[in-house]
Amino acid sequence: MAESGWEAILVSAGTDLRYLTGYNAHPSERLTCLVVPAVGPPVLVLPELEAPLAAAAGVTVAVRPWAETEDPFEIVAAQLRAIGRAGTVGLGNRMWAEHALKLGTATGGRLELAGPLMACLRMRKDGAEVAALLAAGQAIDRVHARMGEWLRPGRTERAVGRDIAEAIVAEGHERAEFTIVGSGPNGASPHHDLSDRLIETGDLVVVDIGGVNEAGYCSDSTRTYVAGGRAAPEISDCYAVLQAAQDAACRAVRPGITAEAVDATARHIIEEAGFGANFIHRTGHGIGLDVHEDPYIVSGNSIALEPGMAFSIEPGIYLPGRYGARIEDIVICTAVGVERLNTRSRDLVTLDA
Amino acid sequence: MAESGWEAILVSAGTDLRYLTGYNAHPSERLTCLVVPAVGPPVLVLPELEAPLAAAAGVTVAVRPWAETEDPFEIVAAQLRAIGRAGTVGLGNRMWAEHALKLGTATGGRLELAGPLMACLRMRKDGAEVAALLAAGQAIDRVHARMGEWLRPGRTERAVGRDIAEAIVAEGHERAEFTIVGSGPNGASPHHDLSDRLIETGDLVVVDIGGVNEAGYCSDSTRTYVAGGRAAPEISDCYAVLQAAQDAACRAVRPGITAEAVDATARHIIEEAGFGANFIHRTGHGIGLDVHEDPYIVSGNSIALEPGMAFSIEPGIYLPGRYGARIEDIVICTAVGVERLNTRSRDLVTLDA
Repeated sequence: MAESGWEAILVSAGTDLRYLTGYNAHPSERLTCLVVPAVGPPVLVLPELEAPLAAAAGVTVAVRPWAETEDPFEIVAAQLRAIGRAGTVGLGNRMWAEHALKLGTATGGRLELAGPLMACLRMRKDGAEVAALLAAGQAIDRVHARMGEWLRPGRTERAVGRDIAEAIVAEGHERAEFTIVGSGPNGASPHHDLSDRLIETGDLVVVDIGGVNEAGYCSDSTRTYVAGGRAAPEISDCYAVLQAAQDAACRAVRPGITAEAVDATARHIIEEAGFGANFIHRTGHGIGLDVHEDPYIVSGNSIALEPGMAFSIEPGIYLPGRYGARIEDIVICTAVGVERLNTRSRDLVTLDA
Repeated sequence: MAESGWEAILVSAGTDLRYLTGYNAHPSERLTCLVVPAVGPPVLVLPELEAPLAAAAGVTVAVRPWAETEDPFEIVAAQLRAIGRAGTVGLGNRMWAEHALKLGTATGGRLELAGPLMACLRMRKDGAEVAALLAAGQAIDRVHARMGEWLRPGRTERAVGRDIAEAIVAEGHERAEFTIVGSGPNGASPHHDLSDRLIETGDLVVVDIGGVNEAGYCSDSTRTYVAGGRAAPEISDCYAVLQAAQDAACRAVRPGITAEAVDATARHIIEEAGFGANFIHRTGHGIGLDVHEDPYIVSGNSIALEPGMAFSIEPGIYLPGRYGARIEDIVICTAVGVERLNTRSRDLVTLDA
């Protein structure tokens, strides 16, 4: 903060706040804002009616509850005036514009994004965070292990997705965060979620699922299945390219390699096989308290990977109107290389009815 | 927009976007942004990999998909430059700071909040919206009707909450949004959600629950129960005050009355009975695609209610360390008065085991 010339950072309800204080506040129009000055103790400004929740979460910083008819933006501004000059403040990246602009007006300060600073802290997972991510990874692996119970020809994606969502909770998450069941042509839409399409025998089905566990850490793993019968030889060839690309990118991870070099590793193999135009997204994203966070494994991101960084490796190949395939593991950069948190087979698995 | 002197409004993924286009985009670090110029046709800037989702949602405005290595903020800026001068832009209130500040830098425009403008549109529900809110209200009423199946002495709040969440989906929502089960002293924390506390015979239990239905509209209703046995006479007296206040505030709703006058109606009755310091929140909030939206039924809000406005009436009385009670209905201001969308009995109901 001193290097940035910031007077303070302001963090509203969300994962940055949970990371810094352990308090998992629900984002709402009522301002919850942790004021972290460059010098001096932090203060948590929060709605009076939610003060018991912060106390129950074991928040140890000073709190300043505001009553329903007080102006919380003015209260934050007063906190900053107590520190000194109205300089620049860093805002948590996911603060709502409603809060950001009102804080700008009330404080008179210049607004910058605290995201890069928060990422410095959040990107490098400590032992407890790695353990929480591993627990989430093992839980989602157990859901994939049960896929044959639900994913069958004649069922809709939506029905399968409902069963998966229940299993995500049953296998060790607090809640399901997303369930993508992209069957046949729907698999070619990377962020397709669920539809009423009936799954057909021989369909290639992209299943990309994740949840959040009690510690707040996320899982995210994709496997591609054949829904009974046998995949066409053409599909098997395409899938073999994808599997080689995903494996090579995972093996490329080690301290010092750049995020974009890991992306290029997967991309090169897919391009060489002639599917470059069909791999329309980055290779991966960081993961922790958010499903998507730094570091992003994407062309143009020259950050060097460090031990403790956790992210997905998830190349995909998408043939519009026909099918798609994706393989995704969460991996952690270790002192000497890489550890995969998802360990289910990455082969193209046929689920027999 | 012309009156505000705005060049355009910029709306990112969220309920404003769903309201304007029907597209229910998932908020993420990848920018989705509807550019609505004061003059000329709107354009939806969105990640290429999500273009099929917008198409499936039946979006009829022009789309400008951006590839993974393009700069979406520059693309929005170019859209604005094509219109003309770099003036002031209005931002959707729940756009993330990350997107808001980068759009400010890229466009060079002055940033203001489009919330008040969007509220003008969203506050007054049309017939289809009222029908969707009514369907959600009836669905949550059916969940309250089944409360005796789950809320029993000897169970934890968390176990009861899990059953309620399942029933919220089963009775006609796409997902459960929140489940507050505040038993005994936990009921005195208005936003308490669930804990491992065992419910005891005679506990007063605040149950405040809601979900989102397929149309995207929300339910939100609170009833207070006695978990077996009989409530102490002191509790019954306090509850009678609350019930009178909630009923009077509902009956006060009609076109032309201010939001703050409705709040004062409930508050006056509770204050007269000596519980003023125990009613620590506003009387209500608007509801629609968001659980909380304009108009807020709070002191200081002098907006005059109009037909089609939908909001909660939910006074509460909270005695720290002892118990709390709240009664909440969603109501709609009609041409001649008010219609309640929740119709379950507001009496203090004892659930017998």
